[in-house]
Amino acid sequence: MTADHISSVNFNENGLVPAIAQDAESGEVLMLAYVSAEALDRTRETGRAHYYSRSQEALWEKGATSGHTQRIEEIRVDCDRDAILYLVEQTGGACHTGYHSCFFRRIDDETVGEKVFDPETVYD
Amino acid sequence: MTADHISSVNFNENGLVPAIAQDAESGEVLMLAYVSAEALDRTRETGRAHYYSRSQEALWEKGATSGHTQRIEEIRVDCDRDAILYLVEQTGGACHTGYHSCFFRRIDDETVGEKVFDPETVYD
Repeated sequence: MTADHISSVNFNENGLVPAIAQDAESGEVLMLAYVSAEALDRTRETGRAHYYSRSQEALWEKGATSGHTQRIEEIRVDCDRDAILYLVEQTGGACHTGYHSCFFRRIDDETVGEKVFDPETVYD
Repeated sequence: MTADHISSVNFNENGLVPAIAQDAESGEVLMLAYVSAEALDRTRETGRAHYYSRSQEALWEKGATSGHTQRIEEIRVDCDRDAILYLVEQTGGACHTGYHSCFFRRIDDETVGEKVFDPETVYD
């Protein structure tokens, strides 16, 4: 069953689609990353958000290092089946910089997000 | 000034970055599309969301055909500057299928979104 649902996703030529993580309770958009079929499969199996790191060329579980995991409440696909939405319960902050959301800055560089942890105490 | 801000965005090898449109009031994630430097520039100049269509290989203004435009309230960039978040006021529905959001379906195919218009009466 899992395989059927995943085969209906239109992965790009690199075998990836963008995945948006959104806080299921507050609605805040937390981050955008990429998922492979394997990452999506692992996410559905474990109930915790997994992604594929293009720079590391590897599957990763969000929060495996920091403890800032994302518990999956729901997974959606868009109309074209080439983008994924993870509705999550975020432990700590989604952003490695310490902000709750990676989208903590306006394009004019003004900071609008909330810092929830000190990255130096988490990634040591 | 516009050029400075746009030059700080890390466009990919195709000159694009993914852009998430989110309803500024409800927090609903509406769609994911791509923007070029030109699309981002036009968005900031006009206050209406513009994207770049990879299939049409052209700049497009959301709602130019359907009337379902997106008025920009705020533009954010993520920590890595390789993803954009448009906070918008959506007229009508964001999805060409008639749903308010393109993410109207769970990955198991159950429909959870709300249909707000009949596409046959809009795209004729």
